[in-house]
Amino acid sequence: MMDAARERDRADPLREYRDRFALPDGVIYLDGNSLGALPKATAERMAGVVRGEWGEGLIRSWNPGENGGADWIGLPRRVGGRIARLVGAAPDTVVAADSTSVNLFKLIAAALAMRPGRKVVLSEPGNFPTDLYMIAGLEAQGLAERRLAPRDRLADALDGDVALLLLTHVHYKTGEVFDMAALTRAAHDAGALVLWDLSHSAGAIPVGLDASGADFAVGCGYKYLNGGPGAPAFAYVAQRHHAALEQPLTGWMGHAAPFAFSDDYAPAPGVGRLLCGTPPVLALAALEVGVDLVAEIGIDRLAAKSRALSEFFRDCLDGLGVALELASPADPMQRGSQLSFRHRQAYAICQALIARGVIGDFRDPDILRFGFAPAYVSFEDAARAARHLAEVLETGEWQREEFRERAAVT
Amino acid sequence: MMDAARERDRADPLREYRDRFALPDGVIYLDGNSLGALPKATAERMAGVVRGEWGEGLIRSWNPGENGGADWIGLPRRVGGRIARLVGAAPDTVVAADSTSVNLFKLIAAALAMRPGRKVVLSEPGNFPTDLYMIAGLEAQGLAERRLAPRDRLADALDGDVALLLLTHVHYKTGEVFDMAALTRAAHDAGALVLWDLSHSAGAIPVGLDASGADFAVGCGYKYLNGGPGAPAFAYVAQRHHAALEQPLTGWMGHAAPFAFSDDYAPAPGVGRLLCGTPPVLALAALEVGVDLVAEIGIDRLAAKSRALSEFFRDCLDGLGVALELASPADPMQRGSQLSFRHRQAYAICQALIARGVIGDFRDPDILRFGFAPAYVSFEDAARAARHLAEVLETGEWQREEFRERAAVT
Repeated sequence: MMDAARERDRADPLREYRDRFALPDGVIYLDGNSLGALPKATAERMAGVVRGEWGEGLIRSWNPGENGGADWIGLPRRVGGRIARLVGAAPDTVVAADSTSVNLFKLIAAALAMRPGRKVVLSEPGNFPTDLYMIAGLEAQGLAERRLAPRDRLADALDGDVALLLLTHVHYKTGEVFDMAALTRAAHDAGALVLWDLSHSAGAIPVGLDASGADFAVGCGYKYLNGGPGAPAFAYVAQRHHAALEQPLTGWMGHAAPFAFSDDYAPAPGVGRLLCGTPPVLALAALEVGVDLVAEIGIDRLAAKSRALSEFFRDCLDGLGVALELASPADPMQRGSQLSFRHRQAYAICQALIARGVIGDFRDPDILRFGFAPAYVSFEDAARAARHLAEVLETGEWQREEFRERAAVT
Repeated sequence: MMDAARERDRADPLREYRDRFALPDGVIYLDGNSLGALPKATAERMAGVVRGEWGEGLIRSWNPGENGGADWIGLPRRVGGRIARLVGAAPDTVVAADSTSVNLFKLIAAALAMRPGRKVVLSEPGNFPTDLYMIAGLEAQGLAERRLAPRDRLADALDGDVALLLLTHVHYKTGEVFDMAALTRAAHDAGALVLWDLSHSAGAIPVGLDASGADFAVGCGYKYLNGGPGAPAFAYVAQRHHAALEQPLTGWMGHAAPFAFSDDYAPAPGVGRLLCGTPPVLALAALEVGVDLVAEIGIDRLAAKSRALSEFFRDCLDGLGVALELASPADPMQRGSQLSFRHRQAYAICQALIARGVIGDFRDPDILRFGFAPAYVSFEDAARAARHLAEVLETGEWQREEFRERAAVT
């Protein structure tokens, strides 16, 4: 098993990229789907932004320019444009700003405003909680009505009251991938708009936002884009909606002329009107490095290696005689960059693995989740992780008291 | 003038703190009211957060704990608690999160929900634009009605339709300070709630949120709190409103049990329900350092030195025969930590000063603004800046072509 793993690593066209990340000794990191690892270049870039752009440049760094201006004001559009290429979108259709949650609010509200007379926002139970909660926020305002239907009943639930279909492209628990083009078409046929949450897709698998006809999308900067803990998120609006787009978080950075300091709001042209407050410069600079590294490696190569890794991990488990219930689709083309298993003791098993230096994660109530971020996870990592998992189950060490106590963040 | 300045600096009890900031050579920085300078400790802290907490700790850093957990999940409340002490608020009434704009939206909406039957949000024309624009966002949703009245007419405008009075405590252009306690009382007498924007107060002058009876407040992290460009903002809710507080940005971090991954939203107790998306860890860590430094120096000493500095600057200008129209109150107790002057050529004069290394700023259409951030501005800085200003006006060098071309960010 180990020999096979090393053989695969030697043949891996992405093997050189592992060294571009700062990975701790003694850790096998299978949680890049929750927090991407640190690109080494980010540490340098952050030092430069802090000491150079902020410390030396001070307020002058907001402007672009020959005199060393760092163009902070351009960061949300610039980083957005780079993310756009990773999700199949035209460059001027994406901004990097705020959190995924806040961007969901903007775009759910924008969709409702575009479909007067319709109030239903349709999603599935078990979608990532913040997606469901942000609909609830608009529901409490009296502006939306939340409707949940299981995946196999979504088509039936798409009636004439639905303003927006809001789905997460790759499910956070199972990794199952929705057919973006087909569901977008179904929603459009019902007169509804579609908003895709790409938090577990962007940087992991190819996404064709423009090609699928999607209306809106949001996504996370701190998972496969390696933007750092709590990195800014992104938001996409299809070009055809730019002129009509109205969103309620009408902050000064989304104004057509923020520095005219007018009393009255006038939206910036295009996707710029999605901006709200002052851009989080330090965080955007870190995100930019992560996004650039993903772009350099290339989404197709990342997706191919990720599938190979997760299949290899399953083969290793089979070889070790580990029979766990797979919660992810068995077909690697039907899942994102993760493998999830169901086990009643998932939490304790996860903790026992962490104690051995194998970091995956647990999702309530019974999901044991392993992410195979292909930019820095090796086949040897996968083989070793499989062996640790086999040993944890075999020895029953997960039964120890210390592995049952729930942490604040799981 | 220079001798007097050096004399004042020698007697300044805060003189040692200047060395705690990284200030560029050849620059007199009078723009801390727009972007606070870099605390030297921030550069070190950021390197530690990036390489240690993120790079080494990875996902484990979300949790507190003996095993080196960095307690990222606690950052919004922890940093909020430290800001609370700077603005006269109980520690569990403030969170650090999102941007000032986004926090305005949450709290304007929360106030409207608490005053059913009233839709008017009252403010003054010329308030900082984002405050006015965020009211406009709720107006476009059909939930609010914006009403603007000049300062001397606010009392008359406080009728039975007003749900919320939203004012900026220290005006961004003139530095004029509102009487927080009196206006809060007037609003309450009319049955309205009050939301104070402390962007130009927090870290600059004493603020008594709890004592004044204020209901809500927001403020900026990147000005006098020295949190870095686009730092997270803060939001305050008086203890008595915690139980009833409902805000529409109901993201997963404001949930009572985010890691239970329930489909249904249930607000966290207290001010925690103001949280929305995943906390921006890198930015919050930088803000924490800035806030701690301000707390160490102490608000009363900062305010006293700031007043002395701005008065000294005016004396210098007088001594140099510079007669500029003062846009700020002449009484230093009536203004924040800045001095503003009106001049039709304010933009070009500002640019000419920047070319000489004196960084103040311009606010459309005619305001020349100098901030006296007392933690790192010296009396010698003030004297030199006054001399440069006198020379720029005397020589007319501001008339050069290069000083008239508007930058993207002014």
